[in-house]
Amino acid sequence: MNHDILKERQNATFDVEKLTNILDGGPEKTKRRREIESMVLSDPDFKEEDPNFLSRSERYEQAVRKSAQMILKLREYGIADPEEIICYKSCVHPGRPEPLDLHLGMFLPTLLNQATPEQMDRFFMPAWNLEIIGTYAQTEMGHGTHLRGLETTATYDPATQQFVLNSPTVSSIKWWPGGLGKTSNHAIVLAQLHTQGNCHGLHAFIVPIRDMNTHDPLPGIVVGDIGPKFGFSEVDNGFLKMDNVRIPRENMLMKYAKVEPDGTYVKPPSAKLTYGTMVFIRSMIVGESARALAKSTTIAIRYSAVRHQSEIRTGEPEPQILDYQTQQYKLFPLLATAYAFTFVGQYMNQTYHRITGDINQGNFSELPELHALSAGLKAFTTWTANAAIEVCRMSCGGHGYSRSSALPDIYVEFTPTCTYEGENTVMMLQTARYLVKSYRQAKAGQQLSGIVSYLNETEHRRIQAQPASARPTVVDINDLASLVEVYKLRAATLVDLAAKSIQQELQNRKSQEDAWNNSAIDLVRASDAHCHYVVVKLFTEKLGEIGDTAIHSVLSTLALLYTLHGITENSGDFLLAGLLNVPQILQISLRIKELLSQLRPNAVALVDAFDIHDKKLKSVLGRYDGNVYENMFEWARRSPLNSSEVHDSFHKYLKPLRSKL
Amino acid sequence: MNHDILKERQNATFDVEKLTNILDGGPEKTKRRREIESMVLSDPDFKEEDPNFLSRSERYEQAVRKSAQMILKLREYGIADPEEIICYKSCVHPGRPEPLDLHLGMFLPTLLNQATPEQMDRFFMPAWNLEIIGTYAQTEMGHGTHLRGLETTATYDPATQQFVLNSPTVSSIKWWPGGLGKTSNHAIVLAQLHTQGNCHGLHAFIVPIRDMNTHDPLPGIVVGDIGPKFGFSEVDNGFLKMDNVRIPRENMLMKYAKVEPDGTYVKPPSAKLTYGTMVFIRSMIVGESARALAKSTTIAIRYSAVRHQSEIRTGEPEPQILDYQTQQYKLFPLLATAYAFTFVGQYMNQTYHRITGDINQGNFSELPELHALSAGLKAFTTWTANAAIEVCRMSCGGHGYSRSSALPDIYVEFTPTCTYEGENTVMMLQTARYLVKSYRQAKAGQQLSGIVSYLNETEHRRIQAQPASARPTVVDINDLASLVEVYKLRAATLVDLAAKSIQQELQNRKSQEDAWNNSAIDLVRASDAHCHYVVVKLFTEKLGEIGDTAIHSVLSTLALLYTLHGITENSGDFLLAGLLNVPQILQISLRIKELLSQLRPNAVALVDAFDIHDKKLKSVLGRYDGNVYENMFEWARRSPLNSSEVHDSFHKYLKPLRSKL
Repeated sequence: MNHDILKERQNATFDVEKLTNILDGGPEKTKRRREIESMVLSDPDFKEEDPNFLSRSERYEQAVRKSAQMILKLREYGIADPEEIICYKSCVHPGRPEPLDLHLGMFLPTLLNQATPEQMDRFFMPAWNLEIIGTYAQTEMGHGTHLRGLETTATYDPATQQFVLNSPTVSSIKWWPGGLGKTSNHAIVLAQLHTQGNCHGLHAFIVPIRDMNTHDPLPGIVVGDIGPKFGFSEVDNGFLKMDNVRIPRENMLMKYAKVEPDGTYVKPPSAKLTYGTMVFIRSMIVGESARALAKSTTIAIRYSAVRHQSEIRTGEPEPQILDYQTQQYKLFPLLATAYAFTFVGQYMNQTYHRITGDINQGNFSELPELHALSAGLKAFTTWTANAAIEVCRMSCGGHGYSRSSALPDIYVEFTPTCTYEGENTVMMLQTARYLVKSYRQAKAGQQLSGIVSYLNETEHRRIQAQPASARPTVVDINDLASLVEVYKLRAATLVDLAAKSIQQELQNRKSQEDAWNNSAIDLVRASDAHCHYVVVKLFTEKLGEIGDTAIHSVLSTLALLYTLHGITENSGDFLLAGLLNVPQILQISLRIKELLSQLRPNAVALVDAFDIHDKKLKSVLGRYDGNVYENMFEWARRSPLNSSEVHDSFHKYLKPLRSKL
Repeated sequence: MNHDILKERQNATFDVEKLTNILDGGPEKTKRRREIESMVLSDPDFKEEDPNFLSRSERYEQAVRKSAQMILKLREYGIADPEEIICYKSCVHPGRPEPLDLHLGMFLPTLLNQATPEQMDRFFMPAWNLEIIGTYAQTEMGHGTHLRGLETTATYDPATQQFVLNSPTVSSIKWWPGGLGKTSNHAIVLAQLHTQGNCHGLHAFIVPIRDMNTHDPLPGIVVGDIGPKFGFSEVDNGFLKMDNVRIPRENMLMKYAKVEPDGTYVKPPSAKLTYGTMVFIRSMIVGESARALAKSTTIAIRYSAVRHQSEIRTGEPEPQILDYQTQQYKLFPLLATAYAFTFVGQYMNQTYHRITGDINQGNFSELPELHALSAGLKAFTTWTANAAIEVCRMSCGGHGYSRSSALPDIYVEFTPTCTYEGENTVMMLQTARYLVKSYRQAKAGQQLSGIVSYLNETEHRRIQAQPASARPTVVDINDLASLVEVYKLRAATLVDLAAKSIQQELQNRKSQEDAWNNSAIDLVRASDAHCHYVVVKLFTEKLGEIGDTAIHSVLSTLALLYTLHGITENSGDFLLAGLLNVPQILQISLRIKELLSQLRPNAVALVDAFDIHDKKLKSVLGRYDGNVYENMFEWARRSPLNSSEVHDSFHKYLKPLRSKL
């Protein structure tokens, strides 16, 4: 064990294990998580070569091998609880998506939700046993977020009782679905349903794409991998072009909507049911943001404790870089953010499950708010984490660029969350739509409940050119409750500004739609402020649940840092709204410096509490034992370019060059 | 040609070619650049496979092949002007560093600057003819920015008249030098010189590391590649461990410092001479920031003109995504930044050359300011561009993640600029040191000249809790000169705040060093504001040189957008300093929206003016003809994973799985 990092651990003021339990949701959960982790991490069948040393094709192959093993072992050990499966998978493919993700996460669940009993008989067990391997083909080359724009057609032919599927244009080629390129032999294809001369919009069809036995593409099918990407190298995101591909009528997923043998279309009873899945996935992504940040800060903070560089005081030994104020200012707010997002993720998960219960009993009342919240928080947390990973990486100096640090991989595997499952700007605008709607309801005298209830109060507030310092100042910058209030009022102010912008545009005779588009900047800002408020609020509320004094103390410091840092980063908003005055902003800057010093002795312990196993972290910089340099050297020597002392190119190009010059 | 992008070009209000000439520095320069480009881009010897389809080893080999060709052709065509060489190289290896970069850019120039005539005879011509291939080995595994911390030793042995080189620890292993891993047979090694029992600090030594004939590592040398990185896949960044490696005394670069045969050390006459190189390289990096941004905005804006998605008005066709206000707000300020940085890059280049003339005549007076400015601007522009590339990438939706977009590659090749040649935070603190020194001189009554002369005025200003709105408001938010003034005063305010923070710490009995460290956050902010002011100022000044009315008009709009956007992004600073009041901040938000609309018709023409050849851009999304989708499909089909219809892993793992489940 490196002596610096040992010393850091000795200086911690709280019990790391207890905090780990809080993060896991209880000591039993910690225990079970570790059991599952050790099942995988000690299993020789899951040994792997560092993917960074492999070609794309080798990476894909290694992932397929491990996924196949994983399926076998999950069955063997009888692990069936979804959370435990996710935990197991996250050890088999640490930090990386894999070729069967869509089969397990979309194909099977979609069958469960939308297949008829007859279809379940035909497809589910073969899919469960991996004879059928499926994916979910929605996105097209020219169409993503806007589903109505999808061009793929499924035209019903009553003569043969078949659907004829076509990709009528280049832009209609299915593009991006994971596992589509090489792995799957079936796809659930989303297509515009045409029957009896009418188009009935998007429906889902089960389309065989490869021969079950030979795995060759079937007639009319052009299928393949979409090529290398930023990350996701293990996954064969694919394309699918269909040319008069015929499938039996019974391959349309017909639990809800139907097409009768004669071509008569039967509408689904309700459209609200698919709503829930999106909310669930977006809520999950909030948790992923937290995990990506936890990993990144673990690496950056541990390395900053081990790394000595430059000098603070002349003549003294090089200090740990964690002693530099600028390094603390880079990393500790992100550490605080990792905690904040962890708790927000827990909240979203709990709320989702609570509301799902309500929904099953026919009570949809909380769904719109959760839907709006999950959209905004998905965007807010992924954008924040995305930028934060890079700050962590760059805080490690040159070594952050080495793949051995793991930070480049964390970034490229995480960054797609900003785009998939709803592009972030579009998500922010969805939340804004809910906020503006609520705002108008409040204006119209309706009493709002839930998280947006603060909009009831906006009537009394107004942006004015009034000097902030002239107002009564009641904010206590050391009191979280008081600061949550300030964030709330900031959100209220920005929602008000956005709504006024729309109003102004309408008064200038713009259409509703143009007024909306011409206010989009303000709307995104309002959503952002709303989400920021929610995060601050949930972090603060979480403190109320913490019994252990030492942990309560350090988490309170983190929460305060998170909150005050957010204010300095957005000080213009708070000044503009007259919520804080200039002396307070200056005071907050000083207070932040104090909080950084206060957190310094606990920094390593706070990342230790995330309890990310070295084999999951896969970072030489972030090793628990702090023995960075010898391991980096060892890693480098295993690099493929070092498999021979002299590279062929010397004999082929460099040496012959001499005689020509 | 895609009809959308054609229409965009028809709507432009200015002559694109004329603007290209301004960016190049004159029509002749445009002409010559294009000549060189077509020399390379039409040359079949430089044809290459898309590196994204190759393994690391294949990428390295392809790069070596092309570099060897390049050397031959440069000699053949007699291209010797450094700028023209850089242009030629940027076409041979578009956007990518290559294995001979350090040989050409550091090894040869260091010989020229620091070798004795005898050493020139022995090393220069062999190096010129690529018999000797060299690199520059400074950074060690545990030591980067802080040169005094380097551990490698060169101990003089008078008995044999040799230096004995050693890597005494793991952390002293040379790490990162480009071309060190596989390509070079020599290295200029920076090591602590020990002679006659004394250490005289860092000196440079020419160390043979591989056999000239067989290319095998020499005895006592352990050399290799440091393994895969985030980008730089063509370069064999390497490690070098030396164990009692002996070199003749004459291999120390002795133009300045010397070691006599008996071991007597002779000091160099002046230390200032190496100063210039750093300034030059950092100034160059400012230009690189501009180029990276030019590329990224070209791709994102062209694609946004071609891409249709969602709806603004119900029932109407999907609009170009460039019509969304949020998309404009993401991209147009970055477009403005690309122009701003281009002009700042030009200024830095000119200033460097002007001052170099002075230096050669013994006049060093402007060097400290340029040194401070180049450090800060290097950090300011690379941080900005780094984040901006990712905004551009994510503004392209899912396809921004595809390697075919080129955006992932632009990012990974560019991001190291934030760390190399001086880590950005350290750079900002260097600039801050100069600012604080100047501030103190001004306080002491000294009259400052040059860019920091505004610090003369700070005496009259002070941060106060005074309401901004209560002050006389003279700022015209449509007048660039007035806004430059505001940026200047913001910088002055933040320098003042940082200096006061140090003072406060000193009053609390902190040492100078601790006071500095405890004010580092404020110091970085001050430098940032200073650099921002310089950029705004230089952009505005550049407008004075533009004769063409149409171009002057559109560039003025860009400059205003850049300036106002910077204010909204940092509105807290301007409010806090009492430089702008709340109504002005709100007015600026509205004005920005108008500027976005105003720029919309010229957006594509403005990126066209960067005149980046499709073969240099290498992006299917950014193609000049806008034919994105068919080319993306074609690119994907060439991907290695599609070389066979059925991947081996199906037969090896997926099919056998069936019988086991």
